[in-house]
Amino acid sequence: MQPPDSSPGFSCPTPDHGGSSPRVLMGHGGGGLLTGQLIESVFLKAFGTPPEGLADAAVLHQAGSRLALTTDAFVVRPLFFPGGSIGELAVHGTVNDLAMAGATPRFLAAAFVIEEGLPLADLTRIAEAMARAAHEANVRIVTGDTKVVERGHGDGVYITTTGLGDLQPGITLSPGNVRAGDAVLVSGTIGDHGMAVLKVREDLGFEADITSDTAALHGLVAEILRCCPTTRLLRDPTRGGLATCLNEIAGQTHLGLVVTEAAVPIAPAVAAGCELLGLDPWQIANEGKLVAVVPSAAAEAVLAAMHRHPRGRQAAVLGRVVADHPGRVVAETAIGGRRVVPMPVGELLPRIC
Amino acid sequence: MQPPDSSPGFSCPTPDHGGSSPRVLMGHGGGGLLTGQLIESVFLKAFGTPPEGLADAAVLHQAGSRLALTTDAFVVRPLFFPGGSIGELAVHGTVNDLAMAGATPRFLAAAFVIEEGLPLADLTRIAEAMARAAHEANVRIVTGDTKVVERGHGDGVYITTTGLGDLQPGITLSPGNVRAGDAVLVSGTIGDHGMAVLKVREDLGFEADITSDTAALHGLVAEILRCCPTTRLLRDPTRGGLATCLNEIAGQTHLGLVVTEAAVPIAPAVAAGCELLGLDPWQIANEGKLVAVVPSAAAEAVLAAMHRHPRGRQAAVLGRVVADHPGRVVAETAIGGRRVVPMPVGELLPRIC
Repeated sequence: MQPPDSSPGFSCPTPDHGGSSPRVLMGHGGGGLLTGQLIESVFLKAFGTPPEGLADAAVLHQAGSRLALTTDAFVVRPLFFPGGSIGELAVHGTVNDLAMAGATPRFLAAAFVIEEGLPLADLTRIAEAMARAAHEANVRIVTGDTKVVERGHGDGVYITTTGLGDLQPGITLSPGNVRAGDAVLVSGTIGDHGMAVLKVREDLGFEADITSDTAALHGLVAEILRCCPTTRLLRDPTRGGLATCLNEIAGQTHLGLVVTEAAVPIAPAVAAGCELLGLDPWQIANEGKLVAVVPSAAAEAVLAAMHRHPRGRQAAVLGRVVADHPGRVVAETAIGGRRVVPMPVGELLPRIC
Repeated sequence: MQPPDSSPGFSCPTPDHGGSSPRVLMGHGGGGLLTGQLIESVFLKAFGTPPEGLADAAVLHQAGSRLALTTDAFVVRPLFFPGGSIGELAVHGTVNDLAMAGATPRFLAAAFVIEEGLPLADLTRIAEAMARAAHEANVRIVTGDTKVVERGHGDGVYITTTGLGDLQPGITLSPGNVRAGDAVLVSGTIGDHGMAVLKVREDLGFEADITSDTAALHGLVAEILRCCPTTRLLRDPTRGGLATCLNEIAGQTHLGLVVTEAAVPIAPAVAAGCELLGLDPWQIANEGKLVAVVPSAAAEAVLAAMHRHPRGRQAAVLGRVVADHPGRVVAETAIGGRRVVPMPVGELLPRIC
């Protein structure tokens, strides 16, 4: 749960469409500004804001050790897409949230809300995909729950996975560590997951070869932290894409980010698909990428370490942290211009993860 | 509704209704035999069976301490019912699963799958109910996730809560501890939760004063364990009711249970409602009751300890564990007869928790 910080001047729709009382909109699930408002106005108000701030995982102090706990609901539609299924996603997404906290993923719990009528063969395929993904990520699925809802009250299956990991001693990843001058890196091309899902979901009329990037990132994280134990912050740009991720970092650090537009790796097929559909690849979800903020002196070494890892072959230095324009992300364009990168408001692509 | 089963020689519907390939049925979510088959044939087959067997919570060995982890998806309909809401249920249910493992509940994670159009006021009421229940149970909701699905793909909100607790040293609750001769106790009246939900869900034409028993049981468990550290096993008879709970204990211990029918506490309004509707109260869900198996020598002391606790005022000794008829539950009727208590097959009351 990460509430975005609103960049100045920003207007957003009120959560009240056509009714006497405000209701939840699809946009509240998009990962952008509306999601942040919902979390803040409903959940944080009721549950309280954790003292350590919001992050992908909560850090727990338990019996002298530090544990990380994170939970994620997966509602992707369709259940199967090029490069994976809701099964891989449900494992990778939660493993990655632990990894972004600097934790080694250990255990997963999985809860299934199944719609009546789902073919058992589909459920089996999904469970097998989860088992495979968990095995590869070296985590154990240790407990679970199964509920069934009537036809028309679900969409095949929704899966909530919760992950428990242990934090490596000496590693603290936090917005509070970030300093002006730090370098911002991304581990590879952006937009692949969202475009892969969109391609099969809608009749888009393009035949590009795009597959989801869904993957576990804890191995790549281990390499980054080995190379640079003073890494400031790691985030995975999932729902809401790179634009949301960078805006959240700017908001939570109260610093500015400057990003070189041309440095952002985008696969040609994804770029072409986005252009065709009028979508901004910076706002499209990723499920196997991370953004790292590291001290500038370590940037080249971290980049080299990422390039050596299969999940970081196309890593790039995107830009830097600045003291100017706190809370805002500015992109430098190829022709020397500058533009503010807005926080997405609502859903660009609903049900993407 | 699945017909309740009639014991040995046991036939059960194949999971294939009107289609070429087997599909998930409502009965797979009822907590009875079909749920067990689904878990075994799909999930355990893919994920493997935990070496310690299936229980309400997984026991994890982490950095020298023992932790319990459990997850539960809540899909109750309607969201609000006499005595509570999905919010209390989502906290109590998971707290209780930890308590049944002998763990002190510490932390909760909460994931929400919200249907587009849910009034924000309802969501707020639910979040506030969760916060209150968590505060009362002395657990912290430390992390969460929010997804939104389109109208017609949910039912207001589904909530998955995952709980982490630490196990008290020296306490091991396990089917393997149960011995012939042990006493079986229940902490109070059965069927209240299911009948409270049913009363508001269907137009039942009875006006009885029935409220859900939803409550956190870790305090009661602490008293039981203080009184009898050699308590063999604790279980909460939720989905599938007392009948499922007792059958699971018989199945997992490979011992028989003999229960005195007249000893089972049932509130008069619940008994009357069940009679009116032709329902078996033994198969109706509870959300604030537990079944305890203790050495017979400790039974009276444990009963007295339960009676002193607000959640155990109507506790009763139900019966005993026997070496005869392993895996089966037999009820002794008031007129001196004996009947087998069947494991419910499918759903008696779908979407009850």
